[in-house]
Amino acid sequence: MSSIKIAKAKRLRSTPYTSRIEKQGVTSYTTYNHMLLPAGFEDSLEESYYHLKEHVQIWDVAAERQVEISGEDATELVQLMTCRDLSKSKDGRCYYCPIIDDQGGLINDPVVLRLNQNKWWLSIADSDLILFAKGLAIGKNYNVKIIEPNVDIMAVQGPKSFPLMEKVFGKSITDLKFFGFDYFYFKGSKHLIARSGWSKQGGYEIYVENTQSGLELYDYLFEIGKEFNVKPGCPHLIERIESALLSYGNDFDNSDNPLECGFDKYVNLDNEVNFLGKEKLKEIKLRGISKKLMGIKIDHSEINVSKAIEIRINSQRIGELRSGVYSPTFKQVIGIVMIDKPHFEIDTKVEITLNNEIKTGVLCNIPFV
Amino acid sequence: MSSIKIAKAKRLRSTPYTSRIEKQGVTSYTTYNHMLLPAGFEDSLEESYYHLKEHVQIWDVAAERQVEISGEDATELVQLMTCRDLSKSKDGRCYYCPIIDDQGGLINDPVVLRLNQNKWWLSIADSDLILFAKGLAIGKNYNVKIIEPNVDIMAVQGPKSFPLMEKVFGKSITDLKFFGFDYFYFKGSKHLIARSGWSKQGGYEIYVENTQSGLELYDYLFEIGKEFNVKPGCPHLIERIESALLSYGNDFDNSDNPLECGFDKYVNLDNEVNFLGKEKLKEIKLRGISKKLMGIKIDHSEINVSKAIEIRINSQRIGELRSGVYSPTFKQVIGIVMIDKPHFEIDTKVEITLNNEIKTGVLCNIPFV
Repeated sequence: MSSIKIAKAKRLRSTPYTSRIEKQGVTSYTTYNHMLLPAGFEDSLEESYYHLKEHVQIWDVAAERQVEISGEDATELVQLMTCRDLSKSKDGRCYYCPIIDDQGGLINDPVVLRLNQNKWWLSIADSDLILFAKGLAIGKNYNVKIIEPNVDIMAVQGPKSFPLMEKVFGKSITDLKFFGFDYFYFKGSKHLIARSGWSKQGGYEIYVENTQSGLELYDYLFEIGKEFNVKPGCPHLIERIESALLSYGNDFDNSDNPLECGFDKYVNLDNEVNFLGKEKLKEIKLRGISKKLMGIKIDHSEINVSKAIEIRINSQRIGELRSGVYSPTFKQVIGIVMIDKPHFEIDTKVEITLNNEIKTGVLCNIPFV
Repeated sequence: MSSIKIAKAKRLRSTPYTSRIEKQGVTSYTTYNHMLLPAGFEDSLEESYYHLKEHVQIWDVAAERQVEISGEDATELVQLMTCRDLSKSKDGRCYYCPIIDDQGGLINDPVVLRLNQNKWWLSIADSDLILFAKGLAIGKNYNVKIIEPNVDIMAVQGPKSFPLMEKVFGKSITDLKFFGFDYFYFKGSKHLIARSGWSKQGGYEIYVENTQSGLELYDYLFEIGKEFNVKPGCPHLIERIESALLSYGNDFDNSDNPLECGFDKYVNLDNEVNFLGKEKLKEIKLRGISKKLMGIKIDHSEINVSKAIEIRINSQRIGELRSGVYSPTFKQVIGIVMIDKPHFEIDTKVEITLNNEIKTGVLCNIPFV
């Protein structure tokens, strides 16, 4: 962890929950979509890791902003931007959608919510997808309205999120299927709640539109959550790498395409559905990918990744590490690497220089098992 | 200043100069275009303010990323995005260009460099303008290439930037006119250098494409700059507010239009030049703006602005403060405010609550005099 402070300004927007998490002891921030996203609390990274896997945490993830696309051409525009086939999509469902440009390069990887046939929310990763959507809509003369609505997500994550949320919203919330969403009432205010979240420990995301009610709900969850050992938290570096929840800007960016990132099941090249970059992706699939996102396990006990770190075989560069952390479960450093062809074999031995020492790593599949 | 740390990750990109400024004692970062931008060094804000106004500083402003637009439709696309008339633009000149969408809402305010008739660099503020440009280009089927080139700006700012730069590049660099640019050699490597920068203290911006040469130049400027009392620095909150150098995301955003921000001289509604939002701006001009960016002087000795703060008259909201700082020159807090119609009169007395106390302010023109 760097000891350098974050300089606050209006440009790095606070969230409705910021004053609360600062009272609760947030110790570091990252920024995400021009907004503050908590990155750590007073507990150590390892303590919060075990807590997330055993109990329940409330996360201020308001920085997952929404791009709302509505109007008669909304569905056509959303489909144009993603290689995932949305032709059979349903209201009340979430869809993980790689967004690509006309060259097949990734631009974002939102969870897309179909509110109804003419209204979508794209719950975005860290890039201004709204500007791409606006540019396309203007250029194509689409009849759509594109805004960033006033939605500030609070996530409830961890195995005890289920009894906690049931205590607030009743039995029906436990009937939500994974990546389903519905509307639930808290003290008379309606909230869209999805069974989703950026961990594999189970939980919900509450898409708060009524800020005042959301803040009351935030406080209430901590009040009645004591019996479940509730704590404030945030997306967790160890847990997310172990679970291979990829991060746009860290693990992949516009220089990568979805086939290189293992998103094959979200790439629809088979039917007539039209999207940007489709022909490019067909070409790439035909000739085969030239690099591939993989896992790595490194025989070492610490790492800080603030930029890509070269991966080598016999001193020759064969790829780069993009994220990494020490895992107390694997008792090694684990990481996400982009590896050049033809080194895609798992169990390939590689070298990496950390703190001026050459360490040994082994390529593996992700998620880590 | 918050005591909360920044959590580094590859997603918040380091610059080529990051390791240098960390050795030189950077104490805080902001993020800008998904990159680290230094926000303070060991000197106090006031010390660095006087230093910038009297001596010379080297700034790591690599976070001012470039959007390079080239190809046969490049000029049409650049013009489409800005309300400034570029029809008489010249190679080798910089143009401050508000970028707006089809509703007239601001998206960015880059300095635009015309490299040649078919190649432009947009040196952007903090939003992913590249995605807007790509969306438009795809939607309109333009024949253009749009990339973020490998350019990492180092700024040389302050009155002694002139003798320092002359010592490196010779007399000819002092012939550059304000917002002109040309190519200069350092130890055999060519660098694009503009007479520009985000202060009103004079200086240059070096658009470093050859990273290795840029790093050598960075070190050389500190080595030979001792006689000019050179120090590392960064865009300076006091100086930039005093000079009314507006900041996208702080002082204005997509909910504001250029006429509300005082950019009238960059809004061309008179001739046939076509750009997005032109009809909207004509309508707005006809009926008059409903809010206006102004200055404020507040009878107080400190302020931290991490979100908009309400401005009132007789307890009624009439606008909001968006940036503010204590100025040792004016011996008051000065700030940038967006004021609702009809309260545009200078010398209007207003109220603002800071740290639970009601303070008195007076509206004024910007820049501050």
